[in-house]
This record gives sequence, C-alpha cells and structure tokens, in this order.
Amino acid sequence: MAMSKVLFLPDQKNVEAEKGTTIMEAAQKAGVYINSLCGGNGVCGRCKVQISGGRVFADKDSIGLLSKDEIKEGYVLACKAKIDHDMEVVVPPESRLEEEQILMGEGIMDYSRPERLLVPKVPADPLTFFEPISQKIYLELQPPSAGDNTSDADRIIRELRKKTDYQDFKIPLHCLQGMAMKLRDNEWKVTATISRNNNSWLISQIEAGDTHDRNYGMAIDIGTTTVVTQLINMNTGNVEGAAGSHNLQAHYGEDVISRMIFACDAEQGLDPLHKAIIKNINNLIEILTGKKGIDKEQITAVVAAGNTTMSHLLLFLTPCSIRLDPYVPTANIFPRIEARELGININSNGILETIPAVASYVGGDIVAGVIACGIADHTETKALIDVGTNGEIVIGNNEWMVCCSASAGPAFEGGGIRNGMRATRGAIERIKIEDNKLIYRTIGGSMPRGICGSGLIDCIYAFVTNGIIDNDGKFKTSSKNERIIERDGERQFIVAYSQDTETGKDLTITESDIANIIRSKGAVFAAIKSLADYVGLKFKDIDTFFVAGGFGSYLDIPKAIGIGLLPDIDPERIRFVGNSSLMGARIALLSGHTLDRAKMIANGMTNIDLSIYHPFMDEYVAAMFLPHTNRNLFPSVKY
Amino acid sequence: MAMSKVLFLPDQKNVEAEKGTTIMEAAQKAGVYINSLCGGNGVCGRCKVQISGGRVFADKDSIGLLSKDEIKEGYVLACKAKIDHDMEVVVPPESRLEEEQILMGEGIMDYSRPERLLVPKVPADPLTFFEPISQKIYLELQPPSAGDNTSDADRIIRELRKKTDYQDFKIPLHCLQGMAMKLRDNEWKVTATISRNNNSWLISQIEAGDTHDRNYGMAIDIGTTTVVTQLINMNTGNVEGAAGSHNLQAHYGEDVISRMIFACDAEQGLDPLHKAIIKNINNLIEILTGKKGIDKEQITAVVAAGNTTMSHLLLFLTPCSIRLDPYVPTANIFPRIEARELGININSNGILETIPAVASYVGGDIVAGVIACGIADHTETKALIDVGTNGEIVIGNNEWMVCCSASAGPAFEGGGIRNGMRATRGAIERIKIEDNKLIYRTIGGSMPRGICGSGLIDCIYAFVTNGIIDNDGKFKTSSKNERIIERDGERQFIVAYSQDTETGKDLTITESDIANIIRSKGAVFAAIKSLADYVGLKFKDIDTFFVAGGFGSYLDIPKAIGIGLLPDIDPERIRFVGNSSLMGARIALLSGHTLDRAKMIANGMTNIDLSIYHPFMDEYVAAMFLPHTNRNLFPSVKY
Repeated sequence: MAMSKVLFLPDQKNVEAEKGTTIMEAAQKAGVYINSLCGGNGVCGRCKVQISGGRVFADKDSIGLLSKDEIKEGYVLACKAKIDHDMEVVVPPESRLEEEQILMGEGIMDYSRPERLLVPKVPADPLTFFEPISQKIYLELQPPSAGDNTSDADRIIRELRKKTDYQDFKIPLHCLQGMAMKLRDNEWKVTATISRNNNSWLISQIEAGDTHDRNYGMAIDIGTTTVVTQLINMNTGNVEGAAGSHNLQAHYGEDVISRMIFACDAEQGLDPLHKAIIKNINNLIEILTGKKGIDKEQITAVVAAGNTTMSHLLLFLTPCSIRLDPYVPTANIFPRIEARELGININSNGILETIPAVASYVGGDIVAGVIACGIADHTETKALIDVGTNGEIVIGNNEWMVCCSASAGPAFEGGGIRNGMRATRGAIERIKIEDNKLIYRTIGGSMPRGICGSGLIDCIYAFVTNGIIDNDGKFKTSSKNERIIERDGERQFIVAYSQDTETGKDLTITESDIANIIRSKGAVFAAIKSLADYVGLKFKDIDTFFVAGGFGSYLDIPKAIGIGLLPDIDPERIRFVGNSSLMGARIALLSGHTLDRAKMIANGMTNIDLSIYHPFMDEYVAAMFLPHTNRNLFPSVKY
Repeated sequence: MAMSKVLFLPDQKNVEAEKGTTIMEAAQKAGVYINSLCGGNGVCGRCKVQISGGRVFADKDSIGLLSKDEIKEGYVLACKAKIDHDMEVVVPPESRLEEEQILMGEGIMDYSRPERLLVPKVPADPLTFFEPISQKIYLELQPPSAGDNTSDADRIIRELRKKTDYQDFKIPLHCLQGMAMKLRDNEWKVTATISRNNNSWLISQIEAGDTHDRNYGMAIDIGTTTVVTQLINMNTGNVEGAAGSHNLQAHYGEDVISRMIFACDAEQGLDPLHKAIIKNINNLIEILTGKKGIDKEQITAVVAAGNTTMSHLLLFLTPCSIRLDPYVPTANIFPRIEARELGININSNGILETIPAVASYVGGDIVAGVIACGIADHTETKALIDVGTNGEIVIGNNEWMVCCSASAGPAFEGGGIRNGMRATRGAIERIKIEDNKLIYRTIGGSMPRGICGSGLIDCIYAFVTNGIIDNDGKFKTSSKNERIIERDGERQFIVAYSQDTETGKDLTITESDIANIIRSKGAVFAAIKSLADYVGLKFKDIDTFFVAGGFGSYLDIPKAIGIGLLPDIDPERIRFVGNSSLMGARIALLSGHTLDRAKMIANGMTNIDLSIYHPFMDEYVAAMFLPHTNRNLFPSVKY
C-alpha cells in the first residue's frame, strides 16, 4: 500500500494514510475531529479544510459546494478530497468542534454544580422520593453459631432486611462465589451493594469492610450531537461533577437519519456507531473520575437517556426499521443490563438502565424530560417542548399524556444556517438592535465564530421589529440598513464584520437562512397547536410550558413568542429548562420508583403521528409567517 | 523430568508418568478409574492394584492395609505406591467402576423408559400442573403497519400473551440484539423460547420458523457416588432417555467429607471438583443427545438436585464451612443461572435451576424427594427416608415438615464392608437361605463381585432368622454352618465361594461387617424414631413411609423391617421409591410452580440437629440390636 504523510493543523497531529483514502478518514485515524452533517456524502459542506502544504487530489465532488474564493485559498471538502501526496491540512475553526467547547448547561439548570436532589428520604411526595437504584449498605453480621446456623446468604439478607425497608433480595451466582471466605476473612464486616431490579433488590457485590461512602452513579444524556454526563454521589444525591463531549458517532453522520443510513447500509455499520458511543461514555468516565480521584469501580449504576435511535445504538440494536415506514423500533422498553456487557468501564457488576422510549421518534430523552418537569405528577396540565432537529411536544398531566414529533430541521442547533453553530464557545447567543446599533454577546466572551439558536431567534426578532424584514421573512426593499448586502447571488445581513470574527470572515444571515428558521419555528408551533387541538385544549388551559433544547444558555422567551415559535401566553408560564433529558436521567438514578414510573409514562403516552394527521399541514402552512398568518393567535405581538 | 511408561490392564491404556508420582495420578492421566474412598490418604484400602510387570516403589504406606497374600501377589495401594520404573498395572474388578455399570434405576421407577408425567394441562391438582420451566412457542406475527407500529419487542410479547396464559414477559438484551432482522428475514414467523423466572417469563431465544417441537430438558441427580440424568421432551413430559455415570469427583475423594477436605485444604481444590462434575454432566449430555440424534442447542433447561455439598461444588461455591461447626453453607437457595456460565453444553441461553437445600446436611436431593413423594401436597402425614452415607428423614404434610440427618455410614452402599459394593453389575442383590441352602441373585445375572445394600439386608435377615448370628450380630458359637470360617483373625461367613466369583476369591461377610450394618440400621431407625417422637407421632400415625436410596433395584421391605431398619408397620404402607431426587428434579423441570414450591418447602422445613438432640443417642444405643432392644417396637418380628 502506498502511504502518504498528512499533518493536521493546528493540532500538529501527524498520520500515515493510504493513498486514495479521504482526508476525513485520515483525520479519524489521527484523532482529529472535523465537522460533518451529511456523514461524508459531500452535500453539507461542513467539513471544509484548507490545504496549506503539499498536494491533494480534488475533483468536482470535493470542491462543488465551495465559493470561488475558498477554492482559490485551497479549501476542499475533507470527506471527498483524496490523499495522493504528503500534505499539510489546516482544519479551520468553523470545521472544528473541540471537547472543551461543549456546554454542560451551566447557568441553565446548574447541572455541573454540586446540587442536592430536593426530595426527602421519607416519601412525603411519593412520586420522586430518594431511593437510589444502587445502594451500599454496611453490615456487621453476627457470626454463625450452633443455635443460629442459617446460610451465609440468608444471614446477609436477614441483616439487609433489618438495615433497609426492603424485603425481597436476590443474590446472583457471581456474588455467592467466594463470599464464604470474604465474610470469614473480614470478621463478618462487609458492605453489600444492592441494586433495584423490578420489585426486588439484587445483591451485586460484597466488599470487605465499610465502603458505603464510596458509591457513585452516572447520569448520561446521549444527544445526537453531544453526550453529557454527571457524576452523582449516590448517598447524598449531590452532583460531584459534569463532563460532556461531542458524540463521536458524528464521524459517521451528523444527524440521526444519516447515522441510521450508515448503520444499515454500510457493512456491519452498526458496530462502529455502537463502539463510538461506548468510547464516548468511557472517555467521560475517565474525565469525571480522574478529576475527582475516584476509582471507576465505585460507580455502581448508570442511567442513560437518549432518543430512540441513540438508545438503540447504545445497546447494539439495529435502528434500520426506525427509519423506514411504518417506523418500528426493536424495543421501546430496554432491559436493565450489567454495564460491562457493553464494555462500559464502571464497577464490574454495575448496572445500566436506559430510559424507555414512547415510539421511534419520541425517545427516552423526552420521557426523561417528562420526569424532570414532573408532567405526569400533577393534576394541572403542562407541556414540554423539546426543540432539536425533531421538535417533540408532550402535553398532559397525571391522568393522560399525548405527544408528537415534528421534523423541525436543525436550524435552532445551527444546522442548515450558513453561519449557524451549536451553542459552544464563540457562538453569538444574544443580539439586539437598539437605536439602529447592533449589539451581540458570545458564549465565553470570545470572538464570534457563528450564531447559535438563541442568537438566531434574537436576530429574526430584531429584524422584524426593526423593519429590516417583512412578515414573510424577506428583506424589505425599502430598508436602507447598511448591513444588508448582496453576495453570492443572495441578500444577506452582516451580523459581525470580518475584522471582529475568529474566522476573519463576515458572519451573515441570508434570506434562505431566515426561511429555514421560519420553517423550523413554524413546524414547532404547528406541532404544539395541532397537539393542543387534538386534545381539545386552548393554550390558556395549559398551566406551564417547559422548553428544552440546545438553543444556548439563555433563551429570550418574549422573543421566542415574538417570532411565533412559542404560543402567545404569559411568558411567566413558559420556563426554559435546558437539558431536561440529563435531569430526568439523574432523577431516575436517585429514585428507583421514578425509574419504574418511566416505563408507565412511556407506555401510557399516546403518540400522534403528525405525518398522517391532516390538520398539521394546514397549521404548518399558517405558521410560515412572522409571527403567524392568524394574528389572533398572537395578540400581544405588536410589530 | 524422568518419565516411566505405565500400562493399565485390562483397559490396555498406556501413559507416560513422571517418576515419583503415584499410580493413582498416572491412572487419572490415562483416564482409568480406580476406586477411592479416602481421597488418596491411604486409609480406605479401596484402590488396590496388582503390579503384573515391571517394578514399583512400595513403602509401608502403600501396602499397610493389605493382607499378606495380597502383598505376595504384588498388590499395592494405587494412591500411595510411587512410579519408579516402567510397569504394568492390573486394576482388579473390585477397584473398578465402569461407566456402564451404573444403574439408571430401571425396574425401580422406570426412569429410562418413556413415561408421561401424569399431570393434566389444566391444574386439576394445582400442586403439580404441567408447565415446563422452558417452553417454545411458535408465533406468526402480524407485520407492522402505519396503524399498528408497536415495537418488535411489544409485538412479540403481545402475541405471546395471546398464545399463553402468561402476562409478564421480559426480553434480555442478547435476545433483542439482531431480533429486528430475524423477524423481517423470516416473514414474521418465529419461535420464542420462554423460561420461567420468578413470576415472569424471560424470552431467551428467537428462532426462525417453527421449531417448537424441538425442545428438551435435562433432569440431573448429582449423587456423591453417581450422577444420573434424564432427557425430557418438554412438550410431552416424556422421558426420552436416561444416562448415568460415576461422579468423577471420586478421583479426589470417595465421600462427601473427603471431597470437602480436598476442596478446602488443597490449593485451589475447589476448581478440579467443580470441573469434574461439569465434565460429568457434559459427558452425559453427549451420550443422551448422541443416542437420540438431538442437537444440544435444543436442550433449553436443566434442573439439578444434589446434597448441599454437591450443589455447592456444581456452582463453584466453597463447601468449607459446611464441614466445620456450626455447619453453615454459603446458600440454601441457589440462583437460577444460564447454564453456559458454568460451561454446561446446552443451548447458549439455556437455564440451570438447582433444587434448594434445607441445611448443610439436608440438601436439594431431599427437597426433590419431598416433591417426588408429594409429602408437602397432602393432609396425611407421610415420611421420606433416604438411606445413604447420611440417612435423611423427613416427616410432614401440607402444613408442616421436620427433617434430620444421621450419619449412617456407607454400609448400605457397600462402603466399610469388606465385600460390599454399590448396586451395579455383579452385585449380589438378593440372598435367602432355604433348607440350609443359600441362594443368591446378582445384578445383571453375572458372576458375583460383591454384595450391595439390599443383599446385605437379606443376609443379616437370613443369618438372624436361621440362627447363624445372635441378636447382637455375633456368630453363634453353637452354629455349625460350614460357611462360617475363621480367617485373618476374624470370623466370617462365605456368601459365594471363590470358584463362583469374578474376583476368584471368596465373598464373605465378617463379624465386623455385621456390626457396621447394625450401626447403620440403628442410626437410621433411631433417627426415624427420634424425629417421630420429636413431633409427638407414633409410627401408626404416619400414613406412608417412602424409602429412597441406593440399596439396589429391589428392597425387601419385610426383611428391612425384620432387621430393625424400618419401623414395624404394615409393609403395604412402606414404598421403595429408588432415586426420588431425580424424579423430583424432573417434576420441577416440567412444573415451574413446583420449582417455586421447592423454595417454600426448603424454607419451611424444620431441621432437627440430632447431634445436639439428646434423646437420639439413647435411641441409637437401643437400636444396636436385632431387631431392637425394645421388642415391643417390633411386635411382628418373630425370630
């Protein structure tokens, strides 16, 4: 095999790559992350890199999506350009996503700060009382005697019954093996790890001496884009630390659909996707335990929440039939397993629970969100709106719940928007125009690299209230704003000038970006409206609207109402909750009862398939206007 | 390492053995079985072999237990004699136990003949209704559609609910993995294997097409001496075949105590004992499936019954604390496991259930016997007497049960008796003296090799009723019987003359043999009497006495009463049931409800520790007489 040397900058990583392989493949080999939305099909243009030395084999596939200037500067698409000679490749900022850039949600729900789960030990509120799914109980056993020669196993169970409120314990074989010596060598003083399994408790581990204070759990939100974890002290419920990273599956496709295609069309495509998420999780475990000096063996339980496809990939279940009509997953309720079965590096008998899903497109992340927002816990009707590539809506109370999923497009996560980006460092997250002056703020206060969801909402709101665009999202021909330019055959608005940006290029919003955002907000609103109509509710009948999603660390609710994304109700009744999936996973970890209820919630939720629910399309068309074709729905919006 | 060649006869097996190793070790290497009672300590004298060529290094340990004649003929103890030169070793008949010699119980309970479990599908008798613990259900699933897009897992469970009476199903991860393709590749026609797990059913396997008629189970009785199995058709309950072999653990000690010592004193002694029984079971699986042309993958469940130590060794649990005061096992209730965890070669998701034990010396074999005899199923009080090295007694009914275990010694299994042997080919099993003429019958009709339990009982009865011995078991000086001789300083009775025997030596019963048998029968009777007294019952209050044990294929009940082994009641109320442990295991395999009840039986049985129950010793002393010191207890015995 003829090999070429490739140096990736600015990472300074060298790799030998076979001639004829793509730059993307070489980058994967080198451990360099390059963005990709389309999974290497050369259609999203997100993986552009600059050849700063050597030569590359570039055909029309590898430059087709680039501007003339970019081609002149040596840019190619990493997924299509093939290696032919030794070369030097610069991965520009907009094509990078560094680990440390992932927002853990600080400032949203305070995930990363130690936090006490505010539930009493005594089930005053029986719906989420504190009962971690994995507990360590220190036992000082009475040694056996002629008058008390019950078996070792029964002796342990007897003492556990005294020390806990639980009756039904089971000891698996691996725990019985070697147990006799462990008891006798340690003068009958041992710590039992017990973990909830349906209605009984499994004794999964016997440790010498008193180790009960060394018991941790992990909550994981497996997002399509990012994987976020929390390390939880199982005795106190405190969050000891948080860590996140981008989902390594992105190498094989940025969105859920392209990963499903990879899993099903590539030969043994499921395997790399499964391994990628396991690697993600193990990396995050390393980071969290390393920071705290905690032994991985002390992590005894993991609860993971993700959309149905992510949960399938985690468990090595094929997602192929999820993608195809009639959209059937292998399972919605996932078995409790030992984490080592999947190669997850925690205690060798530690357990993994996966939050159950409702259907192919309403996953465990939504069920976790329902838990976090307490939607199933109260008589008042509440709603959860999770805005991502799919917008999922749940409306319900303690008696009934309905949900639906609408294809919103990735606009609010920065996808499909020329200078859109996820809510990471350098993203413009807030924008306002005051006295004709544009003011913005970036995440981390650094130079802007792009605009995230909350910034885009602010933008559209500023444009329409300042007469820059019409209610149909087109730039007003009457507007004389100097920032409106015509470039690459399209009208666009310069949000940040090249001299102020990290990329050294203007950050603009084009007319087609605006159309994308309107389509997204229209789909979300139409879904909310359709679902409310389906159950015969007016918005005023809904007590609280919880809004979750990756908009950024801050979502300006009145502006989200102003562009017609959220219903026009008292903004006080709308609460932005950030990563409700992670929060639900943590609650399930700390409350076995809640974990059990997750199955009831998943089973009990009625899923409305909008693709065959005709009123949705009419609602969608009506919502393609700022704020809405029917102004009566937005009485408070005055522009 | 200096090596010597050893040829074992009559097996014609050659082996190279290191100089200084014992003949026993070389035999194990060669796969030649040599008896051993003491586990190689040179104290039982059961492993004697004859050196027919070459030389051997023999010291006083290796010949100490032998007679002068034997030493002259070149006999040594295989466990002590060390290899020094090339040699030829004859393993004499009395030191061999060949696989094919194990009685499967034919003629006792008809285990080996196809047999229908006589329980109706509808629980007319709810105590043992037919509900195999592992079932195969053929499913023709409705393919998913837009109006019915429940998950694959729920689709299967829904259909299983329709096809069975069960509601609660769980699917483990390994079964979900790959399931989507299996369903779609086979047009939604599959067979689910479901196995009982507490109160729910686990879907352990999905096979393409209709395989429901290929479902087998194995019942195993793990005796200290022999391992006996039955292959069961799980659809019909028929016994498709039976196979038995000696317990390969005998290499490490013949009885339970010597194996416990080996497991605990030898470095990693548990491992070879565990591996030996697994090898036993796999060998028997090979034999049974080979005979019937059945794929091992079609065996989906195994139920094993054994004493507490055998169950521990099967499950790789240390038996060390069972042996030591206060006699505590690791567990009495054993977890349900996947058979592959232990390396048992059945279906890769097949299950192993082990019948629970009551205490260290009342094991799962007794609980299985209680099941087989229906002791816990009826209002009438019944008793089970299992005679082995320990005699275990259970008395009870559907409301209460008590049990005890008495050290009876191995006499009735041929142990501790000069010419005693187990009930295998060549064993004299019946003896009578009519008109001063002694008549005997051997198992298999072959030349006699020794005398088994039933033969010994017949013998003692014949001696005492013909005035050959006194009521205290001594040969009457007045008796002029020509078969009574004095040899090796002891009086003995020739049962078979040398010209008629396979060994070419007289088969005799010595005065100390008779004393051993009286001690054994005395211990068993005293235990029965003590237990009946403990619960305040007279023998007449006990509806039926079931007698189990390895006496042979036939036990003459009136003679067993006549020597004072069994209580003097109407012989019609005493039933010899042979291997009740195997029968109980089979019933548990075919009736999950019964398997569950086994735990209740084991937990509910009160174990009386005779070693601290003072009346027992008085009863024991009183029973050291033929039939008993208190003749009032044996009114019908007239000699």
